[in-house]
Amino acid sequence: MHTSPWIIAWLLLLQGCTAEQLQRATSPRTDIRDCSTNPPYLPSTVTETTARLAALRGAMKAHSIDAYIVPATDAHMSEYIAERDSRLGWVTGFTGSAAWIESIGLWILEAVPAGGNVSLDPFLFSIDTWNSYSEALHGSGRTLLPIETNLVDQVWGDQRPPPASSKIYSLPAEFTGSSWQEKVAGIRQQMEQHVRNPTAVLLSGLEETAWLFNLRGDDIPYNPVFYSYTLLTSTNIRLFVDETRLTAEARQSLQAGCPGPLCVELQEYGQVRAHVRDYAQGNVTIWLGTEYTTYGLYGIIPQEKLLEDSYSPVMVAKAVKNAKEQELLRAAHVRDAVVVIQYLLWLEKMVPQGLVDEFSGARHVDALRWAQEHSRGPSFESISASGLNAALAHYSPSNVSSRKLSVDEMYLSDTGGQYLDGTTDITRTMHWGVPTPFQKEAYTRVLMGNIDLSRLIFPTNTAGRTVESFARQALWEVGLNYGHGTGHGIGNFLSVHEWPVGFQSNNIPLMKGMFTSIEPGYYRDGEFGIRIEDVALVVEAQTKQHQTGEKPFLTFEVVSLVPYDRNLIDVSLLSQEQIQYLNTYYKTIRERVGPELQSQQLEEEYRWLQRNTEPFVQSSAGTAAATLCVLATTSLISALLTELQA
Amino acid sequence: MHTSPWIIAWLLLLQGCTAEQLQRATSPRTDIRDCSTNPPYLPSTVTETTARLAALRGAMKAHSIDAYIVPATDAHMSEYIAERDSRLGWVTGFTGSAAWIESIGLWILEAVPAGGNVSLDPFLFSIDTWNSYSEALHGSGRTLLPIETNLVDQVWGDQRPPPASSKIYSLPAEFTGSSWQEKVAGIRQQMEQHVRNPTAVLLSGLEETAWLFNLRGDDIPYNPVFYSYTLLTSTNIRLFVDETRLTAEARQSLQAGCPGPLCVELQEYGQVRAHVRDYAQGNVTIWLGTEYTTYGLYGIIPQEKLLEDSYSPVMVAKAVKNAKEQELLRAAHVRDAVVVIQYLLWLEKMVPQGLVDEFSGARHVDALRWAQEHSRGPSFESISASGLNAALAHYSPSNVSSRKLSVDEMYLSDTGGQYLDGTTDITRTMHWGVPTPFQKEAYTRVLMGNIDLSRLIFPTNTAGRTVESFARQALWEVGLNYGHGTGHGIGNFLSVHEWPVGFQSNNIPLMKGMFTSIEPGYYRDGEFGIRIEDVALVVEAQTKQHQTGEKPFLTFEVVSLVPYDRNLIDVSLLSQEQIQYLNTYYKTIRERVGPELQSQQLEEEYRWLQRNTEPFVQSSAGTAAATLCVLATTSLISALLTELQA
Repeated sequence: MHTSPWIIAWLLLLQGCTAEQLQRATSPRTDIRDCSTNPPYLPSTVTETTARLAALRGAMKAHSIDAYIVPATDAHMSEYIAERDSRLGWVTGFTGSAAWIESIGLWILEAVPAGGNVSLDPFLFSIDTWNSYSEALHGSGRTLLPIETNLVDQVWGDQRPPPASSKIYSLPAEFTGSSWQEKVAGIRQQMEQHVRNPTAVLLSGLEETAWLFNLRGDDIPYNPVFYSYTLLTSTNIRLFVDETRLTAEARQSLQAGCPGPLCVELQEYGQVRAHVRDYAQGNVTIWLGTEYTTYGLYGIIPQEKLLEDSYSPVMVAKAVKNAKEQELLRAAHVRDAVVVIQYLLWLEKMVPQGLVDEFSGARHVDALRWAQEHSRGPSFESISASGLNAALAHYSPSNVSSRKLSVDEMYLSDTGGQYLDGTTDITRTMHWGVPTPFQKEAYTRVLMGNIDLSRLIFPTNTAGRTVESFARQALWEVGLNYGHGTGHGIGNFLSVHEWPVGFQSNNIPLMKGMFTSIEPGYYRDGEFGIRIEDVALVVEAQTKQHQTGEKPFLTFEVVSLVPYDRNLIDVSLLSQEQIQYLNTYYKTIRERVGPELQSQQLEEEYRWLQRNTEPFVQSSAGTAAATLCVLATTSLISALLTELQA
Repeated sequence: MHTSPWIIAWLLLLQGCTAEQLQRATSPRTDIRDCSTNPPYLPSTVTETTARLAALRGAMKAHSIDAYIVPATDAHMSEYIAERDSRLGWVTGFTGSAAWIESIGLWILEAVPAGGNVSLDPFLFSIDTWNSYSEALHGSGRTLLPIETNLVDQVWGDQRPPPASSKIYSLPAEFTGSSWQEKVAGIRQQMEQHVRNPTAVLLSGLEETAWLFNLRGDDIPYNPVFYSYTLLTSTNIRLFVDETRLTAEARQSLQAGCPGPLCVELQEYGQVRAHVRDYAQGNVTIWLGTEYTTYGLYGIIPQEKLLEDSYSPVMVAKAVKNAKEQELLRAAHVRDAVVVIQYLLWLEKMVPQGLVDEFSGARHVDALRWAQEHSRGPSFESISASGLNAALAHYSPSNVSSRKLSVDEMYLSDTGGQYLDGTTDITRTMHWGVPTPFQKEAYTRVLMGNIDLSRLIFPTNTAGRTVESFARQALWEVGLNYGHGTGHGIGNFLSVHEWPVGFQSNNIPLMKGMFTSIEPGYYRDGEFGIRIEDVALVVEAQTKQHQTGEKPFLTFEVVSLVPYDRNLIDVSLLSQEQIQYLNTYYKTIRERVGPELQSQQLEEEYRWLQRNTEPFVQSSAGTAAATLCVLATTSLISALLTELQA
């Protein structure tokens, strides 16, 4: 699934406009100053939020607040959130995501007059976001006022969904890369070896705790995580979680080593603030990752007792998969390829009959995923977009608005699965009729970008942002481009966007054992959208001149195993190297997915795979020369024969 | 000339070691704690600095300072500095540059015990550097103590070189892109249009003032700048400079509009602090670029009256050359190509006779430059390095240590010129004998990198750091790389490294009208070094599919016009596109440099140019097919003949 460079969605609610005007909010960045102008477009999904806003204004008044900032994230800086944390959605009716790059600080200055109080819940904002507001407001006559009582929660009251109560369970050992005790030992070793000698690591990111203890939950749709914090010290481990939710097995796993340094003490989720405050009284140094810690929690710890990195050592350790985790993820991708191949074959048969629309297509591929071994359903809401809809970012069909798939237009399917052994994410774009030459060229160039980045050889520790242009070059060459990121990390039965791996500017350097998506695209507004996405593993490259003693160079091994639409590939645009790469990749697909299709007795799918992975024929320069050769030889022979006959 | 990613060179002088040990300092990062260990290598250029250090320690004692940080830059954050500002060199004898990437803050913590005072002259450190020290020391028990009296200057006393006294002159109108009044008007327009409504722009960078007023000086070797600051407000202009140094013409140019908003008031250079302090009392907003402003000057202005960008609007305006400036720079490069071609021909004749060493070569090319029209000498100390010396960064020969050039090894020449119309910088690597296959492959891959980046088409506003890998890909493919930056901006008779243009992480996005060097390389320790450097202009690209209404895509036009060493190019490694690019580039060289050689009556050089710009023959795939064709045809004919004869 593709990612926008920055996703920021929030509401700055101001006193002053009539509440009735606010329901018109069509974007999360609803600056309500201009409430009277431009009667906005009202989407069909609009929610009536007048009363909610009036109540929220009342709460603001009681706290003498002029503006209140409502964020789109939760207390763990999660990219996907639960309904219970969807404060922005509840207040505005807005449930999508939006991407902007702009000066947030300047915007607050424009929106709130001098003398005003700008307020927010510090336990819902990242340190960076807080600092950007704080810097912008500094000396401006406006006050940035944290209040720990969340005003939205207050007015939401008992209408707010209850906390998650589903079971938190241990991942069976066959699906984990190492035991949680080994992971804890690794982190403790890093603590010991660090020059600042941290005494504890504080984990706020939900994936961090889930990964560290090999636990999974179901608190956020599509993301098998659970609400929690962890304070791991050199001598003990505290897990802040609703302990009634743990399965007996999970509790047993966590407490087998009690008492002792490998005993996980269970604490109430809500106690984390008090506990950290207590712990920070001592002669301690607390190591945390600022990207996943809220300003509120961070502010509890005295500055001199902090060891700050952008990402915690757990986040960084999780990013590099060990051999077993790599095998698990590879295996999940083989079964996922079966799903997508089944879907592509089904579409090939059904679309020409006019029997599929975007929504029914999405439901079908979701069902195919559920049917696979170890499946836990899709890893995000399936994107199924036909024609012009594919040019919209993050488009998902609904049963009320769903376009029919047709042989007359392109179709984009961006879907993924959660399996106990791994998370998947793949995009294929198809055309079952006659694509225009421009569609074909654009598709081929997107594919060339995918290939060029996938086959790149690069030094270890290269930052993704410095090489992602290889996925764009073929488009740039003819003046085309795409406006989203080129890829993101992915987990072992965890998040489909697993940061900090990827090609964005705040991602960490690429290292052997990381998995990332590679997903260039091209979008023509009002016409069509193309994206070709695969997941790839960073592996060692075999290089000729590499000097001994230096670190080996790296490249990618693509683990998504589904062929591309031959109907959209203009082979004459491809270089020899690109064709060779494609043919090798197709050989791998046959070798790895073929047997799985057969063992699942999917014979028709097996034949489809064979057909769609036929090697491409060598191209242009050679072919041109060969053609010339034939012509030359023909005239030569004809001359010769004429001569001889004479 | 190539650039290291970060150049930081400074001394942290501590109380405690015996002074006699300090003369052994072989690196600017001399942490004197370990003064007793490892008797270091003493280079032949070592300077006796014992007495100087003892005096500096005395001054530190008088101020109760435990550690004093001596930087390698001046009060204008200049990359190159005058002898008078070479405090680090005077104290340590170290005059080179060094590159490190590491946590400076952590290092100070290790070097200075708790309770200590760490001091520095705030008017010699950038805001970022100050902040990094300040953050590192915060809460650590060590105090960061700015003192305005510079202790090195104090002990240097009357031995310190006097301030520059040479003339500051106006650049004739034929060599400027626009009048200084037009430039001032442009900056004032930006001030008016800025949302923060700055009332003034403060310029600290020496290039900024020189560019703005079309003035030049001679205060720093190779850099035609002069010590100055500018405070440009919406209604008046103050230039802080030693006014006795201005030529009558320059003074006339600056004061023709007096009194009025286009009158330049001249103030003593040393008065800038007092003046800024005064000005900042009012209801003002001062716009500055933090990268070129010292912490000392910055600290004078109250935070709420600051408008900070990384680079001032003057720095950014200077970075984009207008049509006339582009023509001037192109013209300078034509004459500079003549110089380099003369040099290459001379080497071809002299090296086989054993008549050239690195130093005499450098002197010869310098003399050739001086002989060209509008020349103001070299733009940096010529790098002339043979064999293993070329693998050393920033190597320059001296008359005491100079290696003889020979047909048995490679030779690297990185030189540039200052001309009234432009600054140049070009590197060529040669071999006059039989290069090894590895040398040839490495050279060809460096060339491929140069070509791949030069011919890249990319969207406007692309950051250089996101595309510089195209200059590395051909090397990466076989496990090779280089450890320096890929290029830097360059001026119109200004600095040879003109930031913030270039491919480094802190450079601004590439825009039409910018000039940058493109200079991949490869270095084999103890064996040889390769670098191929050209200067290129960012121009609009002609792209096929580009949508109307969007901003045009960009590419480079290489303005350095000297062919590469054919003896080192393995054509079979080049793609069709690379060969085509090379042949087009060579055609341009012939068209632009040929007539200049003829008008300078350099007939032998003209013939050399023709020889060295012969088109390369089309390559591999086509050639292979053609060979096969010949073989096939031959056997066919032979078979046919046999048949006929039978």
